[in-house]
Amino acid sequence: MKPLLDGDELETRLRRIGAERYHSLHPFHALLHGGRLSRGQVQAWALNRYCYQAAIPRKDLTLMSRMTDRAMRREWLHRVIEHDGGDGNPGGLERWLILTDGLGLDRDDVTSLRLVLPATRFAVEAYVRFVGERSTLEGIASSLTELFAPAIHKERIAGMLANYDFIDDGVMQYFRRRLEEAPRDVGFALAYVKREARTPEQQQAVLDAVRFKCDVLWAQLDALHHAYVEPASPPPGAFVAEARS
Amino acid sequence: MKPLLDGDELETRLRRIGAERYHSLHPFHALLHGGRLSRGQVQAWALNRYCYQAAIPRKDLTLMSRMTDRAMRREWLHRVIEHDGGDGNPGGLERWLILTDGLGLDRDDVTSLRLVLPATRFAVEAYVRFVGERSTLEGIASSLTELFAPAIHKERIAGMLANYDFIDDGVMQYFRRRLEEAPRDVGFALAYVKREARTPEQQQAVLDAVRFKCDVLWAQLDALHHAYVEPASPPPGAFVAEARS
Repeated sequence: MKPLLDGDELETRLRRIGAERYHSLHPFHALLHGGRLSRGQVQAWALNRYCYQAAIPRKDLTLMSRMTDRAMRREWLHRVIEHDGGDGNPGGLERWLILTDGLGLDRDDVTSLRLVLPATRFAVEAYVRFVGERSTLEGIASSLTELFAPAIHKERIAGMLANYDFIDDGVMQYFRRRLEEAPRDVGFALAYVKREARTPEQQQAVLDAVRFKCDVLWAQLDALHHAYVEPASPPPGAFVAEARS
Repeated sequence: MKPLLDGDELETRLRRIGAERYHSLHPFHALLHGGRLSRGQVQAWALNRYCYQAAIPRKDLTLMSRMTDRAMRREWLHRVIEHDGGDGNPGGLERWLILTDGLGLDRDDVTSLRLVLPATRFAVEAYVRFVGERSTLEGIASSLTELFAPAIHKERIAGMLANYDFIDDGVMQYFRRRLEEAPRDVGFALAYVKREARTPEQQQAVLDAVRFKCDVLWAQLDALHHAYVEPASPPPGAFVAEARS
C-alpha cells in the first residue's frame, strides 16, 4: 500500500504533475506566445477556449450543488461571480469576449459555440461531468491546475503583446485579472485537499484529479494544433481560420 | 391535442393548482398555525423542514449548473445568496436555525439531519433530482409554488405568534424575510414560464412541475403528521418529540 504523504509532500507531487503535464508545455502555446500564429489561428484558439471558459461556471455550480456545507458553498461562490460577473464586475466571460471582439470575431459566432471543435466540447464536458460524478474532494482538486496558471498568464501577456500587432493591452485584461484571482482561489483549494485527503487512496485520487484536468487542457490544444496548425485540417463545420497573414 | 394557452390562462391554471394542492391546505398546517401542537411537535416540524431548507441552495445550484445562459445564471444567483448568506446577510438557513434555536433544539441535531424523517429526505432529494434531470423550464416552473407562499407565511407568523408562548417575533424572521423575497423571485420565474412555454406540451410540463412540487411539500407534512400527530409513531432513529405540554 502507498504511504500517507504529509501535506507538503502532497503539494510537491501536485506541483510535479504541473511541471510534467500542464498545457504550458504544449507546442501550441510556444507558437501562440512566440508570435508564430496568424490572426486566424489566434482567432481559432480564442473561439475554442471560450467554450472552456463558458463551461467553468457550470462546472463550479455543479461542484457547489454537491456541497452540503454552507460555508464551503459560500467560499466557492465567488468563483461563479468572478466568471459570470455581478456587482459592477463584468466577469471573466465578458472579458474573454473583449478578447474575441478585439480579434475581430463575431460575438454570436463565439457565444453560440457552433464553430467550436467537437474535441473541445468533449474535453470541456468531460470536466463538467467529472465534478458531478466524482467526490467533492476530487472536484476541488481538479481546480488545482490554477497553481500553474499565473506563470503561463504572465508569459502569454508579455509574449502576445510583444509579438502580435493585433493584440493590445485592452484585450488582455482577462489574463491580468486572473493573475489577481487565481492565487486567492488556489490557496483555499490547496489547503482543502492537503487537509481533507486523509488516506493514501484519497491522496492518490487528488493527484489523479489534477492529471485528469491536465488532460482536459492538453486535449484542447492537441485538437487546435491538428485543426489549425498541422496538418491544419479542421473537421466539418468547425471554424475556418483566415489564411496565414 | 391540447390547445396552446395564452400566458394569462396558463397563470390561471397554475394558480388553480395552488388552490387545490398547495400544502397550506394540509391539516398539519391548521394544527401548527392554530396553536394546537405541543412544543415537541413544533420542534419536529422545524427540524424536518430544515432538511428542506438546507437542500434549496443545492437545488438552485443544480438548476443553475444546467443554465448555459450567463444572464439567467446571474438572475438566479441571488436565490443562493439569499439562502446561504453573504455580504452581511446571514441568509435564510441561518434564520431557520434561529427558529430551531428558539425552539430549544440543538444546532448539531438540526444541521446533521440525523433525526430527520426518511420520508422528508426522500421528498427533498426527489426535488433536487427533478431539477437536475428535467428541462430548465420545468426546473424553473417547480419554483412557482412561491406564488402561494406569502399567504401561508402571513398566516403562520400571525398564528404562531398568537398561539404559542414559546414563539416570539425574533424567531419568526425567516418568514418575514421571505415575505419580501418571494414576490421578487416568483416574478421572474412566472414571466419566464409564460414566455418560454411555447407549445401545449411545454405548458403541460410546467403545470406538471408545479403539481410535482406541491407533492414534494405535501409528502413532508404527511410524514410529519403520521410520525408526530396521528398515530404519532416516528420511525426508528427519528426525532422523538417531547410529551405534549
